[in-house]
Amino acid sequence: MDVKKTIEEISKRAKEASRKVANLSTAVKDQCLLRTAEIIEEKKDWLREENEKDLAAAREKGLSSAFIDRLTLSDKVISSMVQGLREVAALPDPVGEVPKMWLRPNGLQVGRVRVPLGVICMIYESRPNVTIDAACLCLKAGNAVILRGGSDAIHSNLALAGIFHQALSESNIPEAAVQVVPTTDREAVNELLKREEEIDLVIPRGGEGLIRFVAETSRIPVLKHYKGVCHVYVDKYADVEMAKAICFNSKVQRPGVCNAMEGMLVHQEIAKDFLPAMARQFKEAGVELRGCKKTVSLLKDLAVAAGPEDWGQEFLDLILAVRIVDSMEEAFDYIARYGSNHTEAIVTKDYARARRFLKEVDASLVLVNASTRFNDGGQLGLGAEIGISTTKLHAYGPMGLEELTTTKFIAFGDGQVRE
Amino acid sequence: MDVKKTIEEISKRAKEASRKVANLSTAVKDQCLLRTAEIIEEKKDWLREENEKDLAAAREKGLSSAFIDRLTLSDKVISSMVQGLREVAALPDPVGEVPKMWLRPNGLQVGRVRVPLGVICMIYESRPNVTIDAACLCLKAGNAVILRGGSDAIHSNLALAGIFHQALSESNIPEAAVQVVPTTDREAVNELLKREEEIDLVIPRGGEGLIRFVAETSRIPVLKHYKGVCHVYVDKYADVEMAKAICFNSKVQRPGVCNAMEGMLVHQEIAKDFLPAMARQFKEAGVELRGCKKTVSLLKDLAVAAGPEDWGQEFLDLILAVRIVDSMEEAFDYIARYGSNHTEAIVTKDYARARRFLKEVDASLVLVNASTRFNDGGQLGLGAEIGISTTKLHAYGPMGLEELTTTKFIAFGDGQVRE
Repeated sequence: MDVKKTIEEISKRAKEASRKVANLSTAVKDQCLLRTAEIIEEKKDWLREENEKDLAAAREKGLSSAFIDRLTLSDKVISSMVQGLREVAALPDPVGEVPKMWLRPNGLQVGRVRVPLGVICMIYESRPNVTIDAACLCLKAGNAVILRGGSDAIHSNLALAGIFHQALSESNIPEAAVQVVPTTDREAVNELLKREEEIDLVIPRGGEGLIRFVAETSRIPVLKHYKGVCHVYVDKYADVEMAKAICFNSKVQRPGVCNAMEGMLVHQEIAKDFLPAMARQFKEAGVELRGCKKTVSLLKDLAVAAGPEDWGQEFLDLILAVRIVDSMEEAFDYIARYGSNHTEAIVTKDYARARRFLKEVDASLVLVNASTRFNDGGQLGLGAEIGISTTKLHAYGPMGLEELTTTKFIAFGDGQVRE
Repeated sequence: MDVKKTIEEISKRAKEASRKVANLSTAVKDQCLLRTAEIIEEKKDWLREENEKDLAAAREKGLSSAFIDRLTLSDKVISSMVQGLREVAALPDPVGEVPKMWLRPNGLQVGRVRVPLGVICMIYESRPNVTIDAACLCLKAGNAVILRGGSDAIHSNLALAGIFHQALSESNIPEAAVQVVPTTDREAVNELLKREEEIDLVIPRGGEGLIRFVAETSRIPVLKHYKGVCHVYVDKYADVEMAKAICFNSKVQRPGVCNAMEGMLVHQEIAKDFLPAMARQFKEAGVELRGCKKTVSLLKDLAVAAGPEDWGQEFLDLILAVRIVDSMEEAFDYIARYGSNHTEAIVTKDYARARRFLKEVDASLVLVNASTRFNDGGQLGLGAEIGISTTKLHAYGPMGLEELTTTKFIAFGDGQVRE
């Protein structure tokens, strides 16, 4: 297979299809998503057989059980894909929305209308369910999508694409609306990242290595999320019980995800009331605390001394960096230096300090008196999401359907010309 | 001078300043802009002396008179900078706007708030007035800005930055909010484009070569505008007189700019009524028509035969490509193939065809019955603009103050944790 040529053809077909997909009615798109869900259920056995080919190869290669777990299309993963399709079908269509129109002095009526981006390319790693999740969101937002999954999931991804193609074809939508790159050649990614004439947006999902590679190689705009180093700042005016509940939830409820707390900042005036009890609760849950000098001297054997690499570290594990700060300003400086613009929370009863924190802290979600774990499209009320952007262009925070669109200007005239 | 080190220091200073600039009140920012306008007027003679250094060097190098014209800080250019500063000071501040808040079932109140991007880097060519225009918009939107102008304008740019610094300092704003790169070494651009840790957005302004270079080299997101190949489609149901007025204005009012018409598409059923009279009007204005076969056979010596390179050409001159089309669908296909996603207009009296054109044509501005020349931030009612984006991420169309910001999520809780 000539990879360069294959990618060129895929990209051109996607661009051509994107004009049709952009103009589909909401009803047709939703019907296609619901039909995809049905076919997945109908063809579940076949899907598992195809998935088994990938799993067998992975076992033969001796890949880790965690890897094989992510690769498996279990009953649970399959129902969650089906449910996801039905949920997205039920979401409002962002395309065509006109948030505002205004009248110019010359009578020209001007507005912005929400339109699809065009062609989106997803580059992701081993989870094959991303194939359906991404295709579903892209199609609902009126885009064509090119999917490049992990090479170890190629049979699963092609099978899922086949199911989507059947639903597209039954709905009279061009099959090129959803394409899985049929080769596992790594060169395909390099070729995709050069197709700036056809592809409007690249979204990498996976480890930091993949994301950095895509961001540095691509000529096409990239929406990315490097890491989540989230903090809770326990203010001197915090309600101690609330602070304990929020910090515990932020760290322990699901420690391996990007919106879990990785650093806890505690105002010195509340440290004695808050930290020892909090530390005991963390200890019971198996959380290792790595503290600054003051923390260690207060907590004794409930904490170990943090090394310089612990500040700003994304542990994704039951480990927490703890720092006692002299002031809220010190917390601001710490977050600006070590945070990753993902999620930052304050616990306080003080109105003015809550306002300052919301204003001065730069993160995709800033919370007052709530867990960092709420940074998620579903939890914030956006519906399904395709990832969380920690860079500021186009999208900052969870990317839902709206973030897969843009707006163009429209103007209604009666013969206006410029003087 | 160690260029790498200089750029590193400038970038870090900008990032540090950006935290302060993001939190300035509207009153302080506006006062600084108005004071800059005053100082420009006070120091006009000195400014012209500094500009003369650049002009003398340019004359010595034998640069073209058009180039020297763009480099000159004439009385007219100086008053337009001053007026620009006053206009931007009078515009509403985008920072802090909360377009919408909503309540989640668990009582968490969630919203989006408009915030500055952080650090913006402008890379531009010979016009020194861009220094003030860009600094003014970036500051009003709460950003720090790094300005890299053309090497031939270095004295003028540093003088303008000096004036801005005086106003910043009098307003107690860090001078690093506005920095002009003090070296003309080309390596500085390469170094700037690597500072993705500090710079949030790069905006190149200038010729296509500069823009392509920046887009291909940068690791930082780039907002760009390659070219404006704009069309007017004269539908079979057009009002002939209106079509003539709109096409004439779109082509002739200012042919050297990106929103001028470069191609005119005429439905075959109106060609005889419209084209000959239109062609005579164009001829009187000195416009050369390059037509398809049908056009040439209809217009005879009022048009020459177009070559393949004329379709999709950005002439920026009194030259126009003319094509007779069999149907509106043919016009759609032509625009999709040869347009540049900048500005597209239809002239029609038919309601359904106007609706279809608005929906199906993909351009940053789509107009019905009005001149393409309206694609401009001021004309559309956005106030001043920093350029027109023809790519779809983040901004599509004129980029005003709002496009120099982003939104972050905020959430007000009462102790909510995730279950």
